[in-house]
Amino acid sequence: VLFKELNSLGLKINQQKLTILDQELLPHREVWLEVSDPYQMSNYIRSLKVRGAPLIGVAAALAIADYAKKDVSRDELLKSAMTLRGARPTAVNLMNAVDRMLPLLKVPTPSVANLVAKATEIFEEDVRLCLEMGLEGAKFINDGDTVLTHCNAGGLATAGIGTAVGVIKTAHDQGKKIHVYVDETRPLLQGARLTSWELHRHGIPFTLICDNMAGFLMSLGKIQKIFVGADRIAKNGDFANKIGTFTVATMASVHKIPFYVVAPSTTVDPNCPNGKNIPVEQRDPKEVIGAEGHPSSQVYNPAFDVSPRHLVTEYIGCKQYLDL
Amino acid sequence: VLFKELNSLGLKINQQKLTILDQELLPHREVWLEVSDPYQMSNYIRSLKVRGAPLIGVAAALAIADYAKKDVSRDELLKSAMTLRGARPTAVNLMNAVDRMLPLLKVPTPSVANLVAKATEIFEEDVRLCLEMGLEGAKFINDGDTVLTHCNAGGLATAGIGTAVGVIKTAHDQGKKIHVYVDETRPLLQGARLTSWELHRHGIPFTLICDNMAGFLMSLGKIQKIFVGADRIAKNGDFANKIGTFTVATMASVHKIPFYVVAPSTTVDPNCPNGKNIPVEQRDPKEVIGAEGHPSSQVYNPAFDVSPRHLVTEYIGCKQYLDL
Repeated sequence: VLFKELNSLGLKINQQKLTILDQELLPHREVWLEVSDPYQMSNYIRSLKVRGAPLIGVAAALAIADYAKKDVSRDELLKSAMTLRGARPTAVNLMNAVDRMLPLLKVPTPSVANLVAKATEIFEEDVRLCLEMGLEGAKFINDGDTVLTHCNAGGLATAGIGTAVGVIKTAHDQGKKIHVYVDETRPLLQGARLTSWELHRHGIPFTLICDNMAGFLMSLGKIQKIFVGADRIAKNGDFANKIGTFTVATMASVHKIPFYVVAPSTTVDPNCPNGKNIPVEQRDPKEVIGAEGHPSSQVYNPAFDVSPRHLVTEYIGCKQYLDL
Repeated sequence: VLFKELNSLGLKINQQKLTILDQELLPHREVWLEVSDPYQMSNYIRSLKVRGAPLIGVAAALAIADYAKKDVSRDELLKSAMTLRGARPTAVNLMNAVDRMLPLLKVPTPSVANLVAKATEIFEEDVRLCLEMGLEGAKFINDGDTVLTHCNAGGLATAGIGTAVGVIKTAHDQGKKIHVYVDETRPLLQGARLTSWELHRHGIPFTLICDNMAGFLMSLGKIQKIFVGADRIAKNGDFANKIGTFTVATMASVHKIPFYVVAPSTTVDPNCPNGKNIPVEQRDPKEVIGAEGHPSSQVYNPAFDVSPRHLVTEYIGCKQYLDL
């Protein structure tokens, strides 16, 4: 049983080897790491070497299929899948992807071919969904628009062109002249490190700002549209996304700036009625204190926040799955 | 002519030497630097080794008086004063303090004694105004409150106990049990580096957060009051303060959380009718890109933003100077 070659900005199957681009080291070093088994992939997901709600789902599915090729027992496969499933609590794409692999593992003798086919399907589906979201969302961008995005909802966060950044790339590729303000996105700077890297690579002009500058820019009339991704969307449209999104969404609402959530169907949690039911991952204080903070600081470090549906102008890619 | 000994957290006259605590190196190193002349003080102010609207005014006045002791000509004194006056464009306390020294320089033979007396008066007045603001503002803090502050409006920003942080210290010293959320305040992390250092030193419990977490905390009901300083207040109450303040103020307004601006009379610009007339200093992109941002990034780096009066619940220390 062979994998096809699979290529995305942050993850590849190349000569039957599953590798990931170490996103902790971007933008300064581009280092690809081979993934030996699902436990290592879980660690890479926890440490954010692999990140982005759609991508961690795809990465988990591929890690399971790759492990199955290594002649491990059904019980071991199941155990490793459950470890992956619990690697991060907020992004539901991870649970969704593992849950699509589970029925193939819960048979007496799991078929490697079926597991490889399913994981490949999950990868290719994400590529396709990104392209569809790109086209759907690009309609909302006018020639000359300046748009804002938060965190990285790009090719590094998906198997394809990205969600929010995929929309921006699509509009750019359609010949629309656009400029992007990139929130640096503390504490781990996914905007400054990853979205900047990706936009630069794609030739899209951008300006990097600190998160606390976005609201002031809105008040100055410098932002026409805002596009963000999501990590989990409740049935009613409330959604979790990278910490800071709620403030961006609220400031957009105050300034009557259209605010778009771009996410595939795999980001919708049909079992989650509203935002109150979305668990918010709390991460290590060290991420906030970094090199500069006072070492005696207590720290609050939620990785995500939850925004209510009323702040969202339009959902792109997932609207038909929501009860709005 | 001798200076008295003058002591504040960030600036001292000690054995006739004017020294400043290098705020760029806090919280990890406490290094005091002797100031040789007003040009060096201007550089220290530009690089934020000395910072905080009230403190840079006090520092400028003392630097001029100290220079006068060194037998320099009237013209040279005037020239150095004008260099100091232009060191930073937004905080009006700097211009206000220099303008109080100027009449003493614009006489045929400036009196060193008069200059020393005037600079000392400006220092001591700031100490007194801080104490008054502390008492006035502490009335708004209840036992058990959790408050938020942005940037550093503390003893490091004034000659006294601080403005916003002075209010918090006063409430704490009155025996009120309070907890402080400290915005780290990108790009230069005055909250993470300076306010944390100062609160820790004063024994006040605090939690450090990234700027983009404050809005989410407000939505969770975790913040009862917000206190910030100001760098310039227009006659109508619009005010400039550290970048990010506008977003904090707007989020407070949306969540109906009382928002207090704490600033002495020296922060009011009677010649400035409203916020549109306040110049916003733009600083070096390197402050934002830092070690992590993509090196090809364009950067927007306003040091301040301007918030409208309608977002302010109460002005502490300067209300009688405003036309509200």
